[in-house]
Amino acid sequence: MSIDTPLTSILGIHHPILLAPMDVISGARLTAAVSNAGGFGILGGGYGDETWLERETAKLKQSTSARFGIGFITWSLARQPHLLDIALGTRPHAIMLSFGDPKPFARQIKDAGALLICQVQSEAMAEEALDAGADILVAQGTEAGGHGASRSTIDIVPAIVDLAAGHVPVVAAGGIGDGRGLAAALMLGAAGVLLGTRFYASLEADGAEEAKKRICAAKSGDTVRGIIFDMSRENVWPAPFTGRCLINDHARRWQGREVELLQTIKMVAAEYAAARADGNFDIAAVIAGEAVGVIHDIPEAAVIIDRIVTEADQLLLGRRNSAMALPA
Amino acid sequence: MSIDTPLTSILGIHHPILLAPMDVISGARLTAAVSNAGGFGILGGGYGDETWLERETAKLKQSTSARFGIGFITWSLARQPHLLDIALGTRPHAIMLSFGDPKPFARQIKDAGALLICQVQSEAMAEEALDAGADILVAQGTEAGGHGASRSTIDIVPAIVDLAAGHVPVVAAGGIGDGRGLAAALMLGAAGVLLGTRFYASLEADGAEEAKKRICAAKSGDTVRGIIFDMSRENVWPAPFTGRCLINDHARRWQGREVELLQTIKMVAAEYAAARADGNFDIAAVIAGEAVGVIHDIPEAAVIIDRIVTEADQLLLGRRNSAMALPA
Repeated sequence: MSIDTPLTSILGIHHPILLAPMDVISGARLTAAVSNAGGFGILGGGYGDETWLERETAKLKQSTSARFGIGFITWSLARQPHLLDIALGTRPHAIMLSFGDPKPFARQIKDAGALLICQVQSEAMAEEALDAGADILVAQGTEAGGHGASRSTIDIVPAIVDLAAGHVPVVAAGGIGDGRGLAAALMLGAAGVLLGTRFYASLEADGAEEAKKRICAAKSGDTVRGIIFDMSRENVWPAPFTGRCLINDHARRWQGREVELLQTIKMVAAEYAAARADGNFDIAAVIAGEAVGVIHDIPEAAVIIDRIVTEADQLLLGRRNSAMALPA
Repeated sequence: MSIDTPLTSILGIHHPILLAPMDVISGARLTAAVSNAGGFGILGGGYGDETWLERETAKLKQSTSARFGIGFITWSLARQPHLLDIALGTRPHAIMLSFGDPKPFARQIKDAGALLICQVQSEAMAEEALDAGADILVAQGTEAGGHGASRSTIDIVPAIVDLAAGHVPVVAAGGIGDGRGLAAALMLGAAGVLLGTRFYASLEADGAEEAKKRICAAKSGDTVRGIIFDMSRENVWPAPFTGRCLINDHARRWQGREVELLQTIKMVAAEYAAARADGNFDIAAVIAGEAVGVIHDIPEAAVIIDRIVTEADQLLLGRRNSAMALPA
């Protein structure tokens, strides 16, 4: 079975499912697993650790002959633009840029023969990305794990689809973790989905086992968006970006008390850094989105993709058959 | 064409589209128009103005022989339970209760032969409603206009569908205003949709022309959820309920400054009441949800329903055909 869309065509992939380039989590192993299974793996270049990038890109080239991408946090890449040379040197099929103006990097990416994927959270950002020559837009809803903004998936996806108006494919991100989410995204006009949290809870993700277990145990509604974990690791992002994570003791303690947190930040930051080092997720954040409600296991990435595509396909077929069975 | 679901079966209606019982806006005229067009109109009993309820129910019985419902704010109905006698006296096909424990009213509703529709914003509320004997659940996302809570539609709908597990149909509400939204809701497992804002901008809605025009002019993202308009009309709701409205001068002035607003509330409340009386929507709130982004005109309710069902049907058919045209 196959769900063909403008996204699968432009990327030359089998399933309209992209791996979110999660910092630290989306390493070579997970990226290769998603691409080998017919999706599109995107390595998490994140804030840009050069040693990590050199090592993981080398591993990635060894692990797959399938197409893959590499993602960066745009405002962070701007501080060390040479990382883009390293990334393009591995001949990725696409570079994904999120959170910042993509224009300064667009020419170099396209000259290297890679596609430019831009993640956006508003119409203004989408226009900026299209101006820069984006080949694919990712419309990210507030439901997404990690950094994002305030508009919800069911609102932002049709808005960006209307703006892109058939010029480039739009990918839906935020709160999607199963075949229902993929099918719904297609109905909203998206050409595919980008999944973070669902792939975090996979065998191949480079995340702590305890973090993956907490994602499986969390129920729908057990996440929160704010700046507590950014404050606690002394890395507050520019507006309008905030971060979503599982609600834990630390989030419960500080959410809504940002001013007090700022007043004691040195002490809390030290405590937080120690918790991260120890894998103490009562304090350190498990960065995850609202899709946790539909995530209950830690399978191989290939199983996740097969399950989502099969479910979406059956939903689309079932709905149609049920509708057609009735008198018009 | 027809989209048949467990919702259309249980209500005995033609299209899986319900009118949200918007206070003041969903009068007899709009309720009859939605029901006559094959949807399910639900009269907005709201806070419970007895004179209004007597007049509108009388008009409603004259305007339609189709099935309709009547909706109440549960915590408000609890203060004047005799309004339920008036409502049931008109032999509605269903009573919809939102925002509060439905149990005290469930027996009377069912004994009168009406179905019980309960709107919920969390799993706990859904369990309470099922315990009370709800026949239909409405899962309302934070994108909805007016009162609601914090979980988003793409998150809360599958969560409530999983909880209801086939026992009762689940209706999606919040951020839905076109056929894409209906098709997406069906993919998420919903059996239909409940629309407020889309029907506010209809010919038959009992709203100010200027308010309808502002809904058409608003873009996706031009709404805000908070308690500013509740504070300004001195009617703050119990947690977790807040209200969504179009962003206007008043919202811009006070959002995030609730403490200061409370300190000057008498003066502001007088100003706000005058603005409501004058139809000054720079100050008075136009209560609307995130669906404003896909709403651009003020047609008859029947046109809205036809358009949404046609678009959803084509999307479901188109996706299926496109998928089936490919090699498996």
